[in-house]
Amino acid sequence: MSILDKINAVGDIKKVDPSDYKELAKEIRNFLVNNVSITGGHLASNLGVVELTMALHLFLDLPKDKLIFDVGHQSYTHKILTGRKDRFETLRSFGGLSGFPKTSESDCDAFNTGHSSTSISVADGMVKARDLLGEDYRVVALIGDGALCGGMAYEALNNAGRFKSNMIIVLNDNRMSISENVGGLAAYLGKLRTNAKYTSVKSSLEKGLSSIPVFGNDIVEKIRNSKNSVKSLFVKGMIFENMGITYIGPIDGHNIPLMLEAFEAAGKSKNPVLVHVVTKKGKGYRPAEVNPRLFHGVDPFIKKTGRAKSKKGQYKTYTDIFADAVIEEAKTNDNIVAVCAAMSDGTGLNRFRDYYPGRFFDVGISEEHAVTFAAGMAKSGLRPVVAIYSTFLQRSYDQILHDVALNKLPVVFAVDRAGIVGRDGDTHQGIFDLSFLSSIPGLTVMAPKNGVELKRFLEFAFRYDGPVAIRYPRHKATEKLEEFDDPVVYGKSEIIRPIGGINVFAVGRMVKVMDEVLKRIEETEGVKAGLINARFINPIDKETVLNTAGQSTHIITCEENVKRGGYGEAVSLTLLENGYKGRFLDLSLPDEFLPHGSPNDVRDSIGFDPDSLYEKVKEFISM
Amino acid sequence: MSILDKINAVGDIKKVDPSDYKELAKEIRNFLVNNVSITGGHLASNLGVVELTMALHLFLDLPKDKLIFDVGHQSYTHKILTGRKDRFETLRSFGGLSGFPKTSESDCDAFNTGHSSTSISVADGMVKARDLLGEDYRVVALIGDGALCGGMAYEALNNAGRFKSNMIIVLNDNRMSISENVGGLAAYLGKLRTNAKYTSVKSSLEKGLSSIPVFGNDIVEKIRNSKNSVKSLFVKGMIFENMGITYIGPIDGHNIPLMLEAFEAAGKSKNPVLVHVVTKKGKGYRPAEVNPRLFHGVDPFIKKTGRAKSKKGQYKTYTDIFADAVIEEAKTNDNIVAVCAAMSDGTGLNRFRDYYPGRFFDVGISEEHAVTFAAGMAKSGLRPVVAIYSTFLQRSYDQILHDVALNKLPVVFAVDRAGIVGRDGDTHQGIFDLSFLSSIPGLTVMAPKNGVELKRFLEFAFRYDGPVAIRYPRHKATEKLEEFDDPVVYGKSEIIRPIGGINVFAVGRMVKVMDEVLKRIEETEGVKAGLINARFINPIDKETVLNTAGQSTHIITCEENVKRGGYGEAVSLTLLENGYKGRFLDLSLPDEFLPHGSPNDVRDSIGFDPDSLYEKVKEFISM
Repeated sequence: MSILDKINAVGDIKKVDPSDYKELAKEIRNFLVNNVSITGGHLASNLGVVELTMALHLFLDLPKDKLIFDVGHQSYTHKILTGRKDRFETLRSFGGLSGFPKTSESDCDAFNTGHSSTSISVADGMVKARDLLGEDYRVVALIGDGALCGGMAYEALNNAGRFKSNMIIVLNDNRMSISENVGGLAAYLGKLRTNAKYTSVKSSLEKGLSSIPVFGNDIVEKIRNSKNSVKSLFVKGMIFENMGITYIGPIDGHNIPLMLEAFEAAGKSKNPVLVHVVTKKGKGYRPAEVNPRLFHGVDPFIKKTGRAKSKKGQYKTYTDIFADAVIEEAKTNDNIVAVCAAMSDGTGLNRFRDYYPGRFFDVGISEEHAVTFAAGMAKSGLRPVVAIYSTFLQRSYDQILHDVALNKLPVVFAVDRAGIVGRDGDTHQGIFDLSFLSSIPGLTVMAPKNGVELKRFLEFAFRYDGPVAIRYPRHKATEKLEEFDDPVVYGKSEIIRPIGGINVFAVGRMVKVMDEVLKRIEETEGVKAGLINARFINPIDKETVLNTAGQSTHIITCEENVKRGGYGEAVSLTLLENGYKGRFLDLSLPDEFLPHGSPNDVRDSIGFDPDSLYEKVKEFISM
Repeated sequence: MSILDKINAVGDIKKVDPSDYKELAKEIRNFLVNNVSITGGHLASNLGVVELTMALHLFLDLPKDKLIFDVGHQSYTHKILTGRKDRFETLRSFGGLSGFPKTSESDCDAFNTGHSSTSISVADGMVKARDLLGEDYRVVALIGDGALCGGMAYEALNNAGRFKSNMIIVLNDNRMSISENVGGLAAYLGKLRTNAKYTSVKSSLEKGLSSIPVFGNDIVEKIRNSKNSVKSLFVKGMIFENMGITYIGPIDGHNIPLMLEAFEAAGKSKNPVLVHVVTKKGKGYRPAEVNPRLFHGVDPFIKKTGRAKSKKGQYKTYTDIFADAVIEEAKTNDNIVAVCAAMSDGTGLNRFRDYYPGRFFDVGISEEHAVTFAAGMAKSGLRPVVAIYSTFLQRSYDQILHDVALNKLPVVFAVDRAGIVGRDGDTHQGIFDLSFLSSIPGLTVMAPKNGVELKRFLEFAFRYDGPVAIRYPRHKATEKLEEFDDPVVYGKSEIIRPIGGINVFAVGRMVKVMDEVLKRIEETEGVKAGLINARFINPIDKETVLNTAGQSTHIITCEENVKRGGYGEAVSLTLLENGYKGRFLDLSLPDEFLPHGSPNDVRDSIGFDPDSLYEKVKEFISM
């Protein structure tokens, strides 16, 4: 019987003999590699925090205590230690185990997370609630050095410094976001690590400050108060101390006794304490250690070699086409620069960086800054493209509106991962962008029907004198409908199937889907229907909508975005205000958060798969 | 002839004899107090930066150099020094001088601003563009200590630290946001100020580091490199140094020669430099010095006494009613807590703070943190209300969606200053909230028709098990229609005028306006029309919409929000999908940014005043 076999519920780890911790960590790593090689998922970060998570579970009393994961992609070991080991084969599949903390899955998951840099704010709130309600539990935020670059984390630290109450922030410093970390903070953390020998909290103190009794009740306060004379260790954390946060570290994040010592010391403070823990991303699995970036989030792979099982690379994704097009455009336009927020690989801009390193900017997990930084560049004569996933662009809403659109600046937004993204689930779906972007005055919003059209739209956007957002999905770019290649004209849609009495206005990837649905309708029902590729979601092509309305008995809109605020609503208003008397159907996503699972499983579950859409269209036109 | 008389264009200040600077500053202050006492506007902050702005204009070569104001409410002296002195009587009136930087007003205004904490990001972008395009000009960001609390500013500092290029960040430290500053950073800046004697840069250096030649070409680099041995002055700025930003300060912000010395030194660096300048908010006008908070933004006042001319206080604003209602609710529910972001006065929560200091949290200019902090408190058992102006809540879009709505937490959002806010202009209009909030799944969005209803809605929201946003306008709360006081039922609207063939669905303050319009229609046209108070914007009351549709020939929606993504679109979709064959009119704001001016002047300019609405309704029903 392995040690891992004995871990079946929260708290079981406390029964493990300390001499077996190493073996347990090894078994967990093996379990993670075995499972993730089959299901895909986040690997490198989870391998990095095995001992750290074990130490936190040994220190805390879950679920009474609250452990808040930042982002939450690194919560796999936590799931293993809280009775969810047996569900790992279902990881990230529809109805299966989520890849992120989910309060609905376990009461040991204190908060639903997925976006970055939120954990300290949540912890601040929980500490305040605990104290006001007179309760007694620990609150720990576990945040990576990458997530600490996000402005929100700083806002939260700035406020935590005011609390006269215990709260522990564990900084998991693996020197990476998803790519390598960047910026002044990263350099600073680097300095903290430099020359820092991993020693016990005790011996560090003894070396620096022999007169203080070691591990008294108020040891951390004493350390804090005598900061000026403890140059060796604690002064290095001044950036946190300056914000009113006691600093302990750096601590070896693979040494459980050392971490326990630090947590115990931190737990005795009457102030917020930051424990700086250094871990190795990908630890214990050589391919991930060598290339942690590649093993951040992975598709199923062959365990022995680390090579992907899927045929990725045999086809082009929208991301690939975007990257190619930007590189191509940049050849003839020196003013084109590219910005991403810690996603150089995911957005494809790593290839742009290889060609034009001086014109590429990875600002780290700082989506707000990314957008306004681009606004500043655009104002001074450059043509920036900002590539951010749809879900993360939500954090830049105010910057797009106030800094880019209000200043009428020619910034191109490449909105990747738009629509249903699949396995990352509700926190990552890109199903709101048409709603939040389209109400921004002067922001042109577009969606291409296939890969070629994405390229055309980028060519258009780089020549247009104003901000343009182009949204496109994850995964393989379709080559369907490439014979339709009308020149891109501002605000004009494109006709795919001739206008008739029944007409469909489709957005982006839904053009191809609806083309197939209508082909089938024609075959089975003998009814021909028109199909219009919307192209522009803001502004909508009112002229085509109204010309079509004149001859329509039935109009359908179709988009992979929530209904509220989407394209369908805008079309319906135009139709209704202009006296359209026919029938209307808006095929869009329900106004709900959508769960994880393969995109097609998710679509099936809400009736947004081709078969269901066919049935809906068929029923609608028969009315 | 006064010295100010000689200042008529940018650069004129450079012709003033240095011995006259003090007199000029005095004249500018007098000019500011005289004008703002008549027009209203931002006063205390502008009085604080007179010498600082003069020093920047002496140092810079505008418009070639770029001076970026953070927020921009403190740009009055800059406007005086750039040829706009004669337009101050029109300050903040429709068609007149804006209270914020406007690129359309002067090429000395480098960027349009209004929201906080954006300036360093913009400056980062401009520096990059300058260098890539091989141009040569200075880029200066002027940011207050309050705005420096915003996470975006930190993201920008973190990235600025990587630049090997000159850029100057002037930190205008007046120890206040709008209210007193809070948090770790404020405490830290306090420490920097403590014991700091204002001395010349030169003498500080001589004292600390006599071996370095003073004012050599690379003085700042040398200071930087030998930081460890210059404990006296520079080590104090370690929080910035740690981010890779050279720190100079603190400098007396009312001493022009000293500031010029610092700017010149900063200008020689090949790295970003932060110059920490300490100013006194309200300086030179006693009522504003004594109560800078009250004189942050003011209505017209009597110069001699500082007392307001307007009758404010004789009537209740929506803000007052909100504050009363929260205090009232908090009496019987100990779990109610209140959060604001540097707006305790503006949101009315200063009064809540007086009653319940332990349950009130001003997190500073940190709208993102404010929302997720509230989410953390709600998750752990409290009932938080977060009061943020509509325009600033834009910055919390992702937090409302991802941290509050996805976690289904009972946070109440008090969305003050919704609709047209008037004199602050395009950067501050609260005309997007119905669009960006209504597409968030599970977020209930409401708008009261009058003051009593705001109280009812708050009572409802504090008892509802999920997030609720209530939007209400600035200014006097109407007492009209108080006889309509149906119990609040989730998702149900309220009938004000009996349903007929013509029916109007109105949102919030437009209920009263449309009631008057319909009264007039009845009088002049002899046509009775129904009026429905929407109450719920998300979800809309489909049942009432459809019941009404069954008997309608004409349906109108009316809301003070942009058209795209608004209530009208949602109603039109419901109508059209359900076979409504009548006519439809959406009375909402155009999809544009709206300029400054009194709210009524702005409404007049876009045909959204009662007379225009009457004409539109009259025309529509005659069709």
